Amino acid sequence: MNHEFYMNLAIDEAWKYQFLTYPNPAVGCVILDKNGKILSIKAHKEAGKAHAELEAVSKALKELDPNLDLPQDANDLHEFICKNHQGLLKGATAYVSLEPCNHQGKTPPCAKLFSELGFSEVFIAIKDEHKLASGGVEFLKSKGIKVQIGICEKRAKELLKPFLKWQKSSFKIFKLALSLNGSASGKIVSSKASRAYAHALRSKLDLLVVGGETIRHDRPILDARLAQAKAPNLCILSHQNLESFDQKIPLFNVSNRKIFSNIPNEARFIMYEGGENFLKAFKDELDMLLIFSSSNLNTFENVKLDLKLKPLYKGFLENDTYGFYEIIKS
Amino acid sequence: MNHEFYMNLAIDEAWKYQFLTYPNPAVGCVILDKNGKILSIKAHKEAGKAHAELEAVSKALKELDPNLDLPQDANDLHEFICKNHQGLLKGATAYVSLEPCNHQGKTPPCAKLFSELGFSEVFIAIKDEHKLASGGVEFLKSKGIKVQIGICEKRAKELLKPFLKWQKSSFKIFKLALSLNGSASGKIVSSKASRAYAHALRSKLDLLVVGGETIRHDRPILDARLAQAKAPNLCILSHQNLESFDQKIPLFNVSNRKIFSNIPNEARFIMYEGGENFLKAFKDELDMLLIFSSSNLNTFENVKLDLKLKPLYKGFLENDTYGFYEIIKS
Repeated sequence: MNHEFYMNLAIDEAWKYQFLTYPNPAVGCVILDKNGKILSIKAHKEAGKAHAELEAVSKALKELDPNLDLPQDANDLHEFICKNHQGLLKGATAYVSLEPCNHQGKTPPCAKLFSELGFSEVFIAIKDEHKLASGGVEFLKSKGIKVQIGICEKRAKELLKPFLKWQKSSFKIFKLALSLNGSASGKIVSSKASRAYAHALRSKLDLLVVGGETIRHDRPILDARLAQAKAPNLCILSHQNLESFDQKIPLFNVSNRKIFSNIPNEARFIMYEGGENFLKAFKDELDMLLIFSSSNLNTFENVKLDLKLKPLYKGFLENDTYGFYEIIKS
Repeated sequence: MNHEFYMNLAIDEAWKYQFLTYPNPAVGCVILDKNGKILSIKAHKEAGKAHAELEAVSKALKELDPNLDLPQDANDLHEFICKNHQGLLKGATAYVSLEPCNHQGKTPPCAKLFSELGFSEVFIAIKDEHKLASGGVEFLKSKGIKVQIGICEKRAKELLKPFLKWQKSSFKIFKLALSLNGSASGKIVSSKASRAYAHALRSKLDLLVVGGETIRHDRPILDARLAQAKAPNLCILSHQNLESFDQKIPLFNVSNRKIFSNIPNEARFIMYEGGENFLKAFKDELDMLLIFSSSNLNTFENVKLDLKLKPLYKGFLENDTYGFYEIIKS
């Protein structure tokens, strides 16, 4: 198999955690042993937790020595591995979607991890332009590790887009849940796994934006219960004053929630949820769409608007397909 | 990685050629070298051509010795490999979605191929109940090869369903092309890759079934030009007599095409093409649906009917998603 095969595995794995790593970038890592056997395919899962490289190294060591009792905390894990790797990954190869970091952040530098463990080769999709974290390539090379940059560069750039956008301003994604025949109507459209994933996304948001029409019609709670996580702050866009809404609507009774009537400047990761009209109103402001498609056909009207989309990643959640799309400007 | 990981790669690859192998079953094969490195992921592509095992062995040998000049014909290829394998695959492992055949059909037995080349282990998803071809497991074991059966058995059974059905009676699939918002309207709905794939399917059919309404409205040719292959025979289901259709409609002027007004008994692989009404009329007779979903939203009406579907396999063709679905009877 060629290098692209392994890098694509790393990038696909990273997309599964896209946005869940906010404010960190989504990164994936694949590790092969010295003979080319795949040991692990892992991604960074959440800010503050292990980087993709450390996740992949941990899984690779577990694969080779199932008795290893690895600590949970990322810093402890890094330290434990540096002391107890037994040379098991000597001569190994890593494929990483982003240049391994070279700085002590919340966790120790990943470039150093590869050199401590005796990796022979590191393939990198794109360099990290972030001043603090960069320098990984130079460090690896200085340790005699063979480095190749640019495998699946296009896909890695797409993967990194949200991170680059929310670093300099704000990133706006619109979530739309459809049946296979394009209807957004019906009480529950998506699979439980899709809804749990959407709730996990909600818990990472700076702001969830919804329309007054949805609030009045669905009387939703808009929390993150299916991910057992924190409910997002809200922005309700409406011609109506916030005080004039029925305050018994569940979303008004979520503790520790802020509700705005305008998008605050400091919000950097923002998700819109709604149907046809809401999408029509805000389509020109969006960076990306997240569309869930179920495997069911029904008799409801479909969402109708002209929009050509470019898929960046598609995946499956139970019987649903979901995709991240960019709007193709005509 | 576990055995399921590799077997899933084999099964996914086989689904890409599902139906294109008619009347043979779709089969996939993954080969790892003696150290566990992936050498090839291949599938049977067409009846009369190399079986999945021979495809995978050929690719694996090419990976290890790029200078090997392999013959095209499956029989020549089998013979050439048995003479020129240089022991390169000694100790290798194979994952096959169906028990390797043990008989001389159009091509020599695959079980023998693995033993001649010195494979150590063969993982098999399901046994072949076909009397002529079976016996592969016993043969492999008699040659000292370790065999394990039942990896990803459920998925392998789904993969084999069309083959089992058309062997005993007929298999009926309905093709539907939708936009992401569920509309079947518009001149061209699907990507070029999706249409080429649909044309390749058409060229394998015993019969393509369409409705009189489509014929009158679209005036189609219904050939397999995008696959540069043979146009299928047709069955036009209509209240109207076939002679009363405008004979200038292109489909009537395809050479070597038979056109029926009823489904002939001998047709075993049958595809229906149409929209909402045609699907409503025949949904209870279908074994499977093939649904293409583009990445575009438009302003057309959607297909409306209540149908819960179970996806068996989903894949991507350019910007489209396509899926094979079974109808969940309520």
